[in-house]
Amino acid sequence: MGTMSDASAVRGHLWVVGLGPGDLAWRTPEASAALAAADHIVGYETYVQMAGPFRPDQTLHGSDNRVELDRARHAFTLAAQGARVAVVSSGDPGVFAMASAVLEALDGASDPAWHAVELTIVPGLTAAQAAAARVGAPLGHDFCLLSLSDNLKPWEVIENRLVHATAGDFVMAFYNPISKARPWQLGRAFEIVRAHRTGEAVVVLGRDIGRPDERIRLTTLADVRPEDVDMRTVVLIGSSTTRLIPRPEGGEAWVYTPRFYGK
Amino acid sequence: MGTMSDASAVRGHLWVVGLGPGDLAWRTPEASAALAAADHIVGYETYVQMAGPFRPDQTLHGSDNRVELDRARHAFTLAAQGARVAVVSSGDPGVFAMASAVLEALDGASDPAWHAVELTIVPGLTAAQAAAARVGAPLGHDFCLLSLSDNLKPWEVIENRLVHATAGDFVMAFYNPISKARPWQLGRAFEIVRAHRTGEAVVVLGRDIGRPDERIRLTTLADVRPEDVDMRTVVLIGSSTTRLIPRPEGGEAWVYTPRFYGK
Repeated sequence: MGTMSDASAVRGHLWVVGLGPGDLAWRTPEASAALAAADHIVGYETYVQMAGPFRPDQTLHGSDNRVELDRARHAFTLAAQGARVAVVSSGDPGVFAMASAVLEALDGASDPAWHAVELTIVPGLTAAQAAAARVGAPLGHDFCLLSLSDNLKPWEVIENRLVHATAGDFVMAFYNPISKARPWQLGRAFEIVRAHRTGEAVVVLGRDIGRPDERIRLTTLADVRPEDVDMRTVVLIGSSTTRLIPRPEGGEAWVYTPRFYGK
Repeated sequence: MGTMSDASAVRGHLWVVGLGPGDLAWRTPEASAALAAADHIVGYETYVQMAGPFRPDQTLHGSDNRVELDRARHAFTLAAQGARVAVVSSGDPGVFAMASAVLEALDGASDPAWHAVELTIVPGLTAAQAAAARVGAPLGHDFCLLSLSDNLKPWEVIENRLVHATAGDFVMAFYNPISKARPWQLGRAFEIVRAHRTGEAVVVLGRDIGRPDERIRLTTLADVRPEDVDMRTVVLIGSSTTRLIPRPEGGEAWVYTPRFYGK
């Protein structure tokens, strides 16, 4: 089955591998198997390190963070020659990560050998799920995941989505909330949400969840400040029904959004 | 650390375990470890079977599907006596599943022994991620997950969320799309989305993804009918930017939502 590449009698394989949020206990067996099967590991240097250790016969291709499309094209070039290639991504590659970049590369490709590559998307736990699990079940009811990065989409599109996510009383998770190059967007996002949601709404800040420096902080929509957040933080904002349960041992409360709506 | 239950010198442990979408390759090591550590396995009968096999020393408590809160209370009763209890859920327990029910049970509990139980939410891949991975990266940009069940929330809340998710041009995933007791809601949901989104919008129907009878079907917003969907199907609806790439070997196309917005 499948069209063979002209360049090789062996059909190459490209896995887009979700490493999950960092903790090996959260990496799926499918992801581990794909990493073991690959001859070449391609990805942002930090994620390539996170994906290891690797065998001496495996070739690592670490690159800078801002070159997703180049990285995807490099992976297809290798796989089109019959190689077994893993493109690694933290979290779920299908959620604001490498799977879209890989398909963008394929979409624009005229070489039939690229289209003949066996392509497998290996899903993984994403940051919002990891942060949610640490505090309870804030995503227990209807929710949205939004990227606040306006590098590739106009800020007006993001504002419009924030307005509607707020008016729809969705729980929200913000990815790419802030960076040195995007200093004001998160503050503006909080303003939009505050216009339609009570200041008591629960806010969860999850930083590096599943990594050694993991940190969870609970606050409220009234109190949260952009300075509390950095690019390694996922921001969860509760809906009108999201509730807290104090923990007897102290520490942060449990947070959950009930399955029922209204009192 | 932690308050001891009066009933026991041993602090009980309750894990709310996400089994993932069915395929063992998608079950995390954390989930497998929790299942191995538990003395009691509590859950909807089908998921208890899916979670096995178990050792003879483990006690299984399978129950009917509609008794989440009873099941959660039963699990706390066991754990408050010092037992090690796993409540199992398919997918991610934090996404329209058992974690909210478990926290609802805890929220209403006056027994301090319940609050002293060590509680761990074990996240898992959810159906939308599994279906998305099979077809590419439809969730590659801002998206919403909505449950269409009006068993526990008024239908007006769901309609309002559908209107805003559509107006915000979010990709959407519908959970609990239809059942014998809820026959018309999905058709009404399609009507709402059609009012603001082109009929060419991509629709992905993923049924039992990760299980032996897995089935993926691609269609469009104009063509999809409620009869195409059952309660074991997750429905993904693309945004205005979601695109298709034909696969040379035939079969369903790749689907992805690009990271960029606009042409």
